[in-house]
Amino acid sequence: MVKFQVRKLDADKVMVEFECDGALEPGVLKNLQPPDPVKEGFANYLVVLSGRAPVWLYAYLVHFYHPTKAVATYDPRLGGAVVVQSHVRDYEVGDIVKF
Amino acid sequence: MVKFQVRKLDADKVMVEFECDGALEPGVLKNLQPPDPVKEGFANYLVVLSGRAPVWLYAYLVHFYHPTKAVATYDPRLGGAVVVQSHVRDYEVGDIVKF
Repeated sequence: MVKFQVRKLDADKVMVEFECDGALEPGVLKNLQPPDPVKEGFANYLVVLSGRAPVWLYAYLVHFYHPTKAVATYDPRLGGAVVVQSHVRDYEVGDIVKF
Repeated sequence: MVKFQVRKLDADKVMVEFECDGALEPGVLKNLQPPDPVKEGFANYLVVLSGRAPVWLYAYLVHFYHPTKAVATYDPRLGGAVVVQSHVRDYEVGDIVKF
């Protein structure tokens, strides 16, 4: 099971945190219900994905959060989040965003 | 530096393998040139991403390979690739594809 939590970071950044129970099977993606970017009003936010999870879960979520300003993945070793997709000038792919 | 290699797996699957030299900085994304999905004719293929790399590199590539049938990430522990994005009926998100 995957538990999601949304945390507003600042005026244009929101964090979607996830926790995974035990060993996760890929089949979990078929019924996953992450916070909906449209309903949550993420269109004007950079979404930071954060959590200990397999690469395939991140890969799925990056696509899921496409309808946003930009998507970044949090990397504790970098102390920030790496922009991996952007639809606005404020953020460029490869930028490290701190908050 | 990231080196890419394309390997045809079968009639509708292609693997994009990558190797990373040393510690990779996110700034590498600004000049990355992965095999182009349009030029390579990936529109009718499921693209399997494979390589030891940070989450942010996978996250970037998943978006980059959007103009394809589907995208999967190889997971050696599962002995196959997990479909994380699909635009066709043949593949469903969460499926494990073996080849």
